[in-house]
Amino acid sequence: MTRKVVVEGLGYKTTEEQRIEIVERKGLGHPDYVADASAESVSLALCRYYKERFGYVFHHNVDKGIVVGGRAHPSFGGGQVDDPIYVMVAGRATTDVQTEEGTVAVPVGSLAVGAIRDLLRKTFRFLDVDRHVVIDYRIRRGSADLVRLFELGKRTPLANDTSFGVCFAPMTQTERLVLETERYLNSPGLKKELPEVGEDIKVLAMRDGEHIHLTVSAAIISSLTPDLDHYLGVKEEIRDRVLDMASKMTEYSVDVDVNTADQPKEGVIYLTVTGTSAEAGDDGNTGRGNRVNGLITPCRFVSLEATAGKNPINHVGKIYNVLAKLVAEQIYEEVKGVREVYVKILSQIGKPIDEPLMTSVQLVTEKGLTVDALRADVEGIVDENVENVTKLTDRIIREDFTLF
Amino acid sequence: MTRKVVVEGLGYKTTEEQRIEIVERKGLGHPDYVADASAESVSLALCRYYKERFGYVFHHNVDKGIVVGGRAHPSFGGGQVDDPIYVMVAGRATTDVQTEEGTVAVPVGSLAVGAIRDLLRKTFRFLDVDRHVVIDYRIRRGSADLVRLFELGKRTPLANDTSFGVCFAPMTQTERLVLETERYLNSPGLKKELPEVGEDIKVLAMRDGEHIHLTVSAAIISSLTPDLDHYLGVKEEIRDRVLDMASKMTEYSVDVDVNTADQPKEGVIYLTVTGTSAEAGDDGNTGRGNRVNGLITPCRFVSLEATAGKNPINHVGKIYNVLAKLVAEQIYEEVKGVREVYVKILSQIGKPIDEPLMTSVQLVTEKGLTVDALRADVEGIVDENVENVTKLTDRIIREDFTLF
Amino acid sequence: MTRKVVVEGLGYKTTEEQRIEIVERKGLGHPDYVADASAESVSLALCRYYKERFGYVFHHNVDKGIVVGGRAHPSFGGGQVDDPIYVMVAGRATTDVQTEEGTVAVPVGSLAVGAIRDLLRKTFRFLDVDRHVVIDYRIRRGSADLVRLFELGKRTPLANDTSFGVCFAPMTQTERLVLETERYLNSPGLKKELPEVGEDIKVLAMRDGEHIHLTVSAAIISSLTPDLDHYLGVKEEIRDRVLDMASKMTEYSVDVDVNTADQPKEGVIYLTVTGTSAEAGDDGNTGRGNRVNGLITPCRFVSLEATAGKNPINHVGKIYNVLAKLVAEQIYEEVKGVREVYVKILSQIGKPIDEPLMTSVQLVTEKGLTVDALRADVEGIVDENVENVTKLTDRIIREDFTLF
Amino acid sequence: MTRKVVVEGLGYKTTEEQRIEIVERKGLGHPDYVADASAESVSLALCRYYKERFGYVFHHNVDKGIVVGGRAHPSFGGGQVDDPIYVMVAGRATTDVQTEEGTVAVPVGSLAVGAIRDLLRKTFRFLDVDRHVVIDYRIRRGSADLVRLFELGKRTPLANDTSFGVCFAPMTQTERLVLETERYLNSPGLKKELPEVGEDIKVLAMRDGEHIHLTVSAAIISSLTPDLDHYLGVKEEIRDRVLDMASKMTEYSVDVDVNTADQPKEGVIYLTVTGTSAEAGDDGNTGRGNRVNGLITPCRFVSLEATAGKNPINHVGKIYNVLAKLVAEQIYEEVKGVREVYVKILSQIGKPIDEPLMTSVQLVTEKGLTVDALRADVEGIVDENVENVTKLTDRIIREDFTLF
Repeated sequence: MTRKVVVEGLGYKTTEEQRIEIVERKGLGHPDYVADASAESVSLALCRYYKERFGYVFHHNVDKGIVVGGRAHPSFGGGQVDDPIYVMVAGRATTDVQTEEGTVAVPVGSLAVGAIRDLLRKTFRFLDVDRHVVIDYRIRRGSADLVRLFELGKRTPLANDTSFGVCFAPMTQTERLVLETERYLNSPGLKKELPEVGEDIKVLAMRDGEHIHLTVSAAIISSLTPDLDHYLGVKEEIRDRVLDMASKMTEYSVDVDVNTADQPKEGVIYLTVTGTSAEAGDDGNTGRGNRVNGLITPCRFVSLEATAGKNPINHVGKIYNVLAKLVAEQIYEEVKGVREVYVKILSQIGKPIDEPLMTSVQLVTEKGLTVDALRADVEGIVDENVENVTKLTDRIIREDFTLF
Repeated sequence: MTRKVVVEGLGYKTTEEQRIEIVERKGLGHPDYVADASAESVSLALCRYYKERFGYVFHHNVDKGIVVGGRAHPSFGGGQVDDPIYVMVAGRATTDVQTEEGTVAVPVGSLAVGAIRDLLRKTFRFLDVDRHVVIDYRIRRGSADLVRLFELGKRTPLANDTSFGVCFAPMTQTERLVLETERYLNSPGLKKELPEVGEDIKVLAMRDGEHIHLTVSAAIISSLTPDLDHYLGVKEEIRDRVLDMASKMTEYSVDVDVNTADQPKEGVIYLTVTGTSAEAGDDGNTGRGNRVNGLITPCRFVSLEATAGKNPINHVGKIYNVLAKLVAEQIYEEVKGVREVYVKILSQIGKPIDEPLMTSVQLVTEKGLTVDALRADVEGIVDENVENVTKLTDRIIREDFTLF
Repeated sequence: MTRKVVVEGLGYKTTEEQRIEIVERKGLGHPDYVADASAESVSLALCRYYKERFGYVFHHNVDKGIVVGGRAHPSFGGGQVDDPIYVMVAGRATTDVQTEEGTVAVPVGSLAVGAIRDLLRKTFRFLDVDRHVVIDYRIRRGSADLVRLFELGKRTPLANDTSFGVCFAPMTQTERLVLETERYLNSPGLKKELPEVGEDIKVLAMRDGEHIHLTVSAAIISSLTPDLDHYLGVKEEIRDRVLDMASKMTEYSVDVDVNTADQPKEGVIYLTVTGTSAEAGDDGNTGRGNRVNGLITPCRFVSLEATAGKNPINHVGKIYNVLAKLVAEQIYEEVKGVREVYVKILSQIGKPIDEPLMTSVQLVTEKGLTVDALRADVEGIVDENVENVTKLTDRIIREDFTLF
Repeated sequence: MTRKVVVEGLGYKTTEEQRIEIVERKGLGHPDYVADASAESVSLALCRYYKERFGYVFHHNVDKGIVVGGRAHPSFGGGQVDDPIYVMVAGRATTDVQTEEGTVAVPVGSLAVGAIRDLLRKTFRFLDVDRHVVIDYRIRRGSADLVRLFELGKRTPLANDTSFGVCFAPMTQTERLVLETERYLNSPGLKKELPEVGEDIKVLAMRDGEHIHLTVSAAIISSLTPDLDHYLGVKEEIRDRVLDMASKMTEYSVDVDVNTADQPKEGVIYLTVTGTSAEAGDDGNTGRGNRVNGLITPCRFVSLEATAGKNPINHVGKIYNVLAKLVAEQIYEEVKGVREVYVKILSQIGKPIDEPLMTSVQLVTEKGLTVDALRADVEGIVDENVENVTKLTDRIIREDFTLF
């Protein structure tokens, strides 16, 4: 099989060389992240159940979800959640499997509700999942024929849609800084040293030339924050630590603002009971947060597909985004002379997922290098990765990748 | 104040003397009972919160609810819940309290969701409340002015509705047998010795003359029941134990049928994963189960008001049913010559709850006795109880009474 | 087949002769009535669809429902509904029918939503069903085998539960007055002459000896009521008309109170935008309103079963209540010397519905008459009616009876 | 005030000159579009109500929503919707307005439900909105002080978030073709001539050099399609018409595939009762469809912000996307030598919306031209537009712009 790979030069400045860059990341506790993570947790629970029980991951697609904010009254040293957060995941899944012994039911509803509950328990330290959340689902029924699928299973799954995956490499310094800042602020280590920092963290960077302006929004835990001084101290500590980390990561100058919307004199500060703004009115939808590389990048070509909640067997909106990321990273790492690379992979509905309609690779190369010189290497990397695309399924189920 | 009490003779056979009697009780795990208990758990949680935080129980009424059955596949030795049970309580409550320090929010939603969850955890041994239930609420907001109420609080609360409470005394042998059978089958002792018996138990008795035909429906726990023989053994054991208990409680002859709808040859038996039929399709509504004395009695005058979920301050649909029960019991116990008594208390909206519009007492007396001879005693008991009606509030909050 | 009929004398005063009587009726627009009517509308829509499409009414049971009140701001001459009323019907129904041509799907969800919407449009003149209501349903799936059922269909349906139906005859004057008062106030004629009278009407009568105290609660339509004088005029008009009607219906003296909770000076009057209290916070549940004869009667033996929403094929909780009413009425009308009659019919689960476990008939007879003298006639009437019980199905579907 | 505008050259091939281009548009009836349109319809209804009643548009944000697919059985010449589509919009809105006459309530719930219903009625010809849809909302309450706002209203609104708007100009031929193809297939004219074409249309174009491969997915209305031949005829007609239109719009060669997933021999065709795939399982979320220019463009820099449902007063995630589009288009049209332009506008939370933190303009210019030569013109256009940004509010409310 010959796969169509189109390699062309972008022939312009890399993103790093452009003067302006804007990068954002919504952290673990952000309502959009929670909507993504909830959808993905349901997909993972289904995958694992299907595999363990039937040896085969059945069709499902639960990539739509909503987080509706509650109502809360945080206060220094305490506070309460008045109305719970509402979390719902929607889609369809295989609920009935025809086996040789008859039809077997899949506990889709219990798996969904349980998976979301476990996720929320794992994500938040100060959210009382028994009281502060209503978990719901709207997943339609579907059926599968195990025997028929078992035979089909020897073949490559067929793309469920005409869709595309998009990613790039490498990350700029700004991008890495944004990603690492959120990861650091949500790391177990930081939570131990500075437990006041809630899980709902948003990091936004604006680079102008050689200066990065970093804005951190961090929900502060009210029960651990006795007064305004303490609150301001925590903000200061966040700023210092992020600045410190930044100085080791980038040569650019960096300044950091924390919770810029605060107006302490008017009592407006970012205090939460639970660590997420969803407690008091911020809502979320699946697919509205970070792309497959963990970032929101208006200075980059991206896919609008949500990776969260899609099945990792044949849903190209998920698989091809992961694939594009791996291909881009490998090209950047292994093909000498590539300074920046964009990969776009386009599926054709109904065709095996290792036969995309086309793969587009756009390169910014080192001066003097022509794209033609790199074409063979690039094509080889694309081909190898596409050839092995079905191996991504298990890796996604094992959570080898972060997807958002 | 003179309270209107109308005492009259019913002048007919007591219920015990009538030839036919039908009595029913829905047990702890029955969907209608769960709907009642959920509504009441929310009311109790509100009462306790209001009292602790403000020293005063505010207006609320959460006496409507629904339990929507899930989907389950029980099987000998195992089984699974496919789709969770949906439990929802509706009504209104005081969410905002004006105090001298400003408006204080009440965490009504968290209280409601938490109370129902706690109730379900306490009620069922085999229901995984994290996975097998979706808990929801639809409680509208209301506000209260603490200062104004504090002053009002010195006065007697005003009836919130034109409504009535109804009860009788004494219970017949059949009634006591039905009540005790369910209590026994849901007692910790029995659950220890015969853990296979689930919480969803329905007892129906039909007495014809001196013979009681008792029908027990009992959800059997699938994971503890390895095979059909075991199942049949458990049914036999239930029958024997109930017969044994009955023989000590009544002079009538008794026969007992357990799970009469079973058709073991066709695989139709009453097996459940969780101990409640709600797991697979039986639904419930608040106010559809037992009356204030724990029974459903089509041979008795009863109130159709739900006691569950109403506030115990001024909701006469709750308070007057409890009051009617206490008055009837006291009259029967203390007034010599009374063989059976019905008490009906009618409120008038907007008047203090210790000023009902009228209390009707109907007596079946011993031969030769006129109602006139008992009137003073009866009126005294009514008056004393009505006088002290406001004391019922705290007793209801302390769960001194079973209400359904 | 010999059917067990137990006839006994109650041998006491008729209800009419008792000194105190309490009777209530919740009218068309009352939240509990709406919950009943919604459930029944779904059952009727299913019945008609099943019959028309398959020639056979399939199993369903949608006898649980909830009406959650909205939020509204009525004002003289106008007003608005801020938050819609939420109406939900729950249960299960046959969604998939195996026919010789394969599985045929039943549009249960669309039928349910459409039936409730049509009902609300028909019931209320001032409720904008497009804006003022959210209609939902939670009906689980079930399947049926048409071929097998067709054969079974030749036989009598089997009782789905151990349950009972209860009714009595005749109505007392007070009972008829309550029933007719609501019907009159919700009649097309009255709505034409006094359109201000909303559909949510509750009538409560308390008879003490030869005097009836009638309390009417009637939601008044705000847009048709320009000011307080007009409102008070409408109340006066209601009172006059009801008094007028009462004087023609009963020999007792009658006084009428309308909207007694009003406190016009404090702005507390019963004004509604839509004609139902559900617009601003009153909730309803199925099975909480009128019994099969249209009344709530704490001075009568009654069934607690909801008739609304149950299937009219084999759900004895519905059919036997209708049957008990017909039998009681026929006994009263045809058997000379019967002054009052209670009929209770007890089913046995799994047996044909024309083979109840037992029918209890309790009589108050004219002086000098023994029950024995009437026994044969009574038994004949019971037998004839029970024999023809399956004919009730079609009559229920044709809406020959009011059920609540 | 000096506004920061950074103009730099991208200095590379325009998108038109790149070899590969991928462009997508989700049409009016696509579930993601419906989720967007529902959210926006609620925002518009609120805006208009606020304006008419209070003269001022209050805070709201209803930019999260979900469309959960139903269940349907289309068939040639007919078909039915079994389970309705569920549509829900979430967020918060001003429900209580303090005015000089006291607190005035806003009918947010009725407005929301009504707006979505009206939208669906307007969008679909074959969706029975009374039966095929359940419309719900979860909008939290908020309050506003009219007097205070009136004074504030004289000043420029403050940005509600740190966010950014992104757009570009001009569209490529491929982009215009995709946009116009969907518009044409959903135009009144086409619906008249080819009424079989449903509203759920997705157009995806892949351009490779000088050839465009256009894929059209179009839900076909089952009731208008008597058989497979007719269906295939409609597809042919769509193809011919689109090809005809394309030939007039672009110099590239074009081929068109319609409903490529069809497998007519196996009965797999894209037939719908209602004209939307949401009838049978496709779900949608707000913010997952087209960007502000109506397209999904993985070869372009874009914003991930949903424009739908955000308030047009101070929600920069909406306003700045519209602004970026206008600025980009004006620069392209008025500044000679600009071949392609990207505009990104970054807000600063809490600052007036006419004071963005920074505007980035990236240009591809004609050969020989430096960015410096164009800088003044570009800055002038940015400044003029930003200066007048508050005028966009009214234009958005008047629906001058399509937003997705």
